Amino acid sequence: MKVVRYPKHNEWQDLLKRPAFDNASLFDTVNTVLNDVKSKGDIAVKKYGLKFDKVSIETLSVSEQELEWAEKCVSNELKEAILTAKENIAKFHAAQNTQLPKIETSKGVTCWQKAKAIDKVGLYIPGGTAPLFSTVLMLSIPAQIAGCKEIVLCSPPNKEGKIHPAVLYAAKIAGVSKIFKIGGVQAIAAMAYGTESVPKVYKIFGPGNQYVTAAKQLVSLKDVAIDMPAGPSEVEVLADSSANPKFVAADLLSQAEHGVDSQAILITTDEKLAEDVVVEVEKQLAELPRKEIATQSIEHSKIILVKDIEEAIAITNEYAPEHLIISTRNYLEVGEQIENAGSIFMGNYTPESAGDYASGTNHTLPTNGYAKAYSGVNLDSFRKKITYQEISKEGIEIIGNTIEIMAENESLFAHKNAVTLRRLL
Amino acid sequence: MKVVRYPKHNEWQDLLKRPAFDNASLFDTVNTVLNDVKSKGDIAVKKYGLKFDKVSIETLSVSEQELEWAEKCVSNELKEAILTAKENIAKFHAAQNTQLPKIETSKGVTCWQKAKAIDKVGLYIPGGTAPLFSTVLMLSIPAQIAGCKEIVLCSPPNKEGKIHPAVLYAAKIAGVSKIFKIGGVQAIAAMAYGTESVPKVYKIFGPGNQYVTAAKQLVSLKDVAIDMPAGPSEVEVLADSSANPKFVAADLLSQAEHGVDSQAILITTDEKLAEDVVVEVEKQLAELPRKEIATQSIEHSKIILVKDIEEAIAITNEYAPEHLIISTRNYLEVGEQIENAGSIFMGNYTPESAGDYASGTNHTLPTNGYAKAYSGVNLDSFRKKITYQEISKEGIEIIGNTIEIMAENESLFAHKNAVTLRRLL
Repeated sequence: MKVVRYPKHNEWQDLLKRPAFDNASLFDTVNTVLNDVKSKGDIAVKKYGLKFDKVSIETLSVSEQELEWAEKCVSNELKEAILTAKENIAKFHAAQNTQLPKIETSKGVTCWQKAKAIDKVGLYIPGGTAPLFSTVLMLSIPAQIAGCKEIVLCSPPNKEGKIHPAVLYAAKIAGVSKIFKIGGVQAIAAMAYGTESVPKVYKIFGPGNQYVTAAKQLVSLKDVAIDMPAGPSEVEVLADSSANPKFVAADLLSQAEHGVDSQAILITTDEKLAEDVVVEVEKQLAELPRKEIATQSIEHSKIILVKDIEEAIAITNEYAPEHLIISTRNYLEVGEQIENAGSIFMGNYTPESAGDYASGTNHTLPTNGYAKAYSGVNLDSFRKKITYQEISKEGIEIIGNTIEIMAENESLFAHKNAVTLRRLL
Repeated sequence: MKVVRYPKHNEWQDLLKRPAFDNASLFDTVNTVLNDVKSKGDIAVKKYGLKFDKVSIETLSVSEQELEWAEKCVSNELKEAILTAKENIAKFHAAQNTQLPKIETSKGVTCWQKAKAIDKVGLYIPGGTAPLFSTVLMLSIPAQIAGCKEIVLCSPPNKEGKIHPAVLYAAKIAGVSKIFKIGGVQAIAAMAYGTESVPKVYKIFGPGNQYVTAAKQLVSLKDVAIDMPAGPSEVEVLADSSANPKFVAADLLSQAEHGVDSQAILITTDEKLAEDVVVEVEKQLAELPRKEIATQSIEHSKIILVKDIEEAIAITNEYAPEHLIISTRNYLEVGEQIENAGSIFMGNYTPESAGDYASGTNHTLPTNGYAKAYSGVNLDSFRKKITYQEISKEGIEIIGNTIEIMAENESLFAHKNAVTLRRLL
């Protein structure tokens, strides 16, 4: 790992630069698929399944039998782990179910806000070598707690036309209503527009490759909401001399094994830690099954030495990492000063993988610096808030004049009239 | 107004159709301006100001002197109204400032969530015939309460190079940090990318014409978050025989005077009310200064007669109106059953204009059916939520096995290792 020693403030920006990530060049290709599915429905979905996933699917939806088969395939050990994770995720997200009290903003003027579930949501779970059942939990559990009536899940089938049993099992226990063997751009299109088989949804969630990301962006311009813009995953460890180099190395490598474009950064005040982590990373890397991926990702990762914790905090807020591990003596105090991050892991015994799977927080988080403006997925991602106001005859008398004057000054006389008529009666 | 009598369920969709609203054809033009401002900064901003707003601006930022001049220009009556509105808006939005308690999801595993302000936000206020000082309040008051450090406002200057004094006054009292005389696409570009004068922000809010909307959409693909997609404003009145036809007509016309593409719909169970409203609309319309606009908008507005309140509720949830006025005997009960709407106005004495100006709720709301998935602007629009977890040595021992099993089954061995190493120590 490259060690950068005491960079000046004006070097931060370059140092923290993420790999460019521009989907715009894919928009034409992606638009073709989107439009095709929009106009032709299931037939187009199946055509692209054959073309891109190399598999012909007769019935797009997953049957009861397939769910039963999946349940039999998953080991008891994994089932138990999934159920424990589910319980923790449910506890944390259920606690977010707060409603505000009614507020009397002015005598006779009562205002309130009420969260209502988004009726229909769509979850996309990528295929590939590893079955992302943890992402199924992270998206469907809060959807269920929010009260979404229809929770649709799309995931690409393998060459045998099957979705991994652990994905199906997780979907079943977490309340997904309909599962479809559809991947890629055609899955996003099917959920955005609806087809004969797939219901149209109002919001689409979940990770995906560059094509899926481009498709989500394009449908979000007009047709449907999306969770957030996506980019490669990343972790920052912020550490002082109290950190354990073995743990830090393991945390950096957890990120590095995700993909060759993953980012792992250590920011530390301690020269000795920096040296030890370099050695530990090499040592642990050699043992990893996904060594090849992790090696490439570690090559462009960095250890940055800074003069004190204040500087470490400042540089962190500029970087706005998706995951931030704080391994310092006073980690609670440091955590308070972080303004921009997706999820924060406090102290030496809180690895990122805890949040990835089972602590209870959500692992769908803003990457690419989006943590400056976006939250990770949470209960409110599956709800919208309606505001209400109720004004009494006395109330409109009291604030009526204010409204009339403002409306008149904005040249909106019908707005004024709607108040005046009520005051006359 | 056209009266549609007892439509069948399969006719609803056509009946509720909004005018098509596709910005994609503007993307090329808009992209040219965006890229020009991105690469050339202030010079390009000024060039487009001259081209589109027909005014040459030397200094883009509004000076202290201009703010003082503005304060002198605004009448005491309007100042007082603005301050009253400010107080109500502040009360309602401050009440949304809740923080969740820490949750122990499993022994030794503590998770929590903390809302943090978005550091830098940009507000766009359109120009035109009427000064939208109310929108200044609706955006800058929650930004200030959230604790945004930099609140930037852009608004196009008039032919004399000035922004309306009421807009400047509202911006000043509501805590805007920097005001710029920039309009249109170049304003969105300046805030998205930053220029020599204008700071780059992380999220852009506010209404605008189709070009501004297209610009917001394009910059949201990669560079900056936006409040929500925009469309023409709309109101639905849901009424039974207890409604007052005068009030209903005034409310429909409030919407109609906004613009020729505004939507106003009455859904009612009462034939007599439908008839009376038609007459009242004609009568009130004749008196309006903005008669010409309102007449065009009313032409494509509708009164829909339905058989009972249940059907009225169902059709409303399908339409998902930006503003919904419920004028029925049991309006609280009906309000509970609304799943999709931006803001709801309860009972006979709560006109939409109350929420537009002074009840305290926000008037920046989801149009075009987006209320199915989006909230209106609220305090959380100016914040993002960071999640935290803190796990003790005992805690990682307890959930460690769950994480290890899940990581292994997702083929992520470095994730597993980050836990195993901690359990060994």
